[in-house]
Amino acid sequence: MSKTVHIVFAHPDPNSLTRQMADTAKEALEAEGHRVLTSDLYGMGWKAVYGPEDFPERLNPERLSFPRESGHARESGTQPADIAAEQEKLLAADALILQFPLWWFSMPAILKGWIDRVWAYGLAYGYQNAGNTHRYGEGGFAGRRALVSVTTGGPEADYGPRGINGPLDQLLFPLTHGALFYPGMEVLPLQAVYGSSRLTEESVEAAKAAMRARMKTLFTETPIAYRKQNGGDFPDRHTMADHIPPGLTGITAHIA
Amino acid sequence: MSKTVHIVFAHPDPNSLTRQMADTAKEALEAEGHRVLTSDLYGMGWKAVYGPEDFPERLNPERLSFPRESGHARESGTQPADIAAEQEKLLAADALILQFPLWWFSMPAILKGWIDRVWAYGLAYGYQNAGNTHRYGEGGFAGRRALVSVTTGGPEADYGPRGINGPLDQLLFPLTHGALFYPGMEVLPLQAVYGSSRLTEESVEAAKAAMRARMKTLFTETPIAYRKQNGGDFPDRHTMADHIPPGLTGITAHIA
Repeated sequence: MSKTVHIVFAHPDPNSLTRQMADTAKEALEAEGHRVLTSDLYGMGWKAVYGPEDFPERLNPERLSFPRESGHARESGTQPADIAAEQEKLLAADALILQFPLWWFSMPAILKGWIDRVWAYGLAYGYQNAGNTHRYGEGGFAGRRALVSVTTGGPEADYGPRGINGPLDQLLFPLTHGALFYPGMEVLPLQAVYGSSRLTEESVEAAKAAMRARMKTLFTETPIAYRKQNGGDFPDRHTMADHIPPGLTGITAHIA
Repeated sequence: MSKTVHIVFAHPDPNSLTRQMADTAKEALEAEGHRVLTSDLYGMGWKAVYGPEDFPERLNPERLSFPRESGHARESGTQPADIAAEQEKLLAADALILQFPLWWFSMPAILKGWIDRVWAYGLAYGYQNAGNTHRYGEGGFAGRRALVSVTTGGPEADYGPRGINGPLDQLLFPLTHGALFYPGMEVLPLQAVYGSSRLTEESVEAAKAAMRARMKTLFTETPIAYRKQNGGDFPDRHTMADHIPPGLTGITAHIA
């Protein structure tokens, strides 16, 4: 069954490992008969900084509330064209792949700014103008899958359970849980290439082969079992229910 | 004893809570006799996107390695003037305060891009061109304190130990541990104002009073006890030592 996949990547160099991984994913998906949409953030000259110029017709010219103006701009059709175009790609896709180098243990600013600007009020949060009623497991991006695929300069050991940087999946929790699961996406386990500063031709080929294999299971894998807001684990929409053992706290407690 | 504090803030609206908190911190510090340097990222039109134009004289024009070109630009004095100016402020300061609204559980892109571009190789990482020899507790920003001060739209319960978003200090670990402690800063516990979307005049005043009180202890508080790379907890510089109980894993294990 043919699907549509949206690949967003963030590196300016066409020879970069980031670009090679994005190209490999695209080719593998197309070989399976899927349609691929891409957002080459550096190539597009993506505007990273969310600011007043993104709201040409303000509800309140005196004081800038991003949520209120974001919702107003989207509802009134006055969003900048670049934001609207990215929302259209997202909504046309069955899966989103984010491919980027890990910079200071999170996304490069250009990709953070893609989320800041595209994740509009009424769509990605405040869904249907119903406050926090629909989030974490449902919302404007429900029914879609998400795969975060990163390259790290440092070695895998640094990102292990007792690694000096902290585990990669915990470092990326603000993205996977906070930005992707929040508006309803099903988030898959990470794809990672470690030690990118010391790769050989063989290890690059191995990384590409792993990406090709991963693309074959994109629509059949089991997503991370993050607890849904409205699935019984958060009866008041804020705090975990008593049936979750009291010893479970912190971000690791969010995986059922 | 008079100190120098560098306050970096990220909100375009001069009436924003972010600006009010930054102004309050500045006034309180100056009242104590300290000198305050500020970086108003929106006001400065800070360039958030780290890219090829930041390296006017490339070591390798064929392929862009950010670490290699970053180190080369800094050593050869060809860094853009805005980057060099921010590094000078950082190095002139005894403490850094970052004040920002939490967007998608991390920094607004403009602030992430401030770190991406200013945290140069040879200074913030690869210190003294010695690879990973000096990091996490020592490095180019050693001897300085750092305070992360955020405002969140959502209520405090959502950020509690069993809150639906995850605990705020764990969400910000990539910044506090990964970007601030890494190059040697002593990181203080977070300063936070929750529920910014529903503040009353009284609660804004309470938030300002809390910030004023916090400024009085900026140089006397005990920093977060993150484990230092070279303090005995990471004998191979990658993985926690055996004397740390085997049940301790993940980012919470990084606090001694």
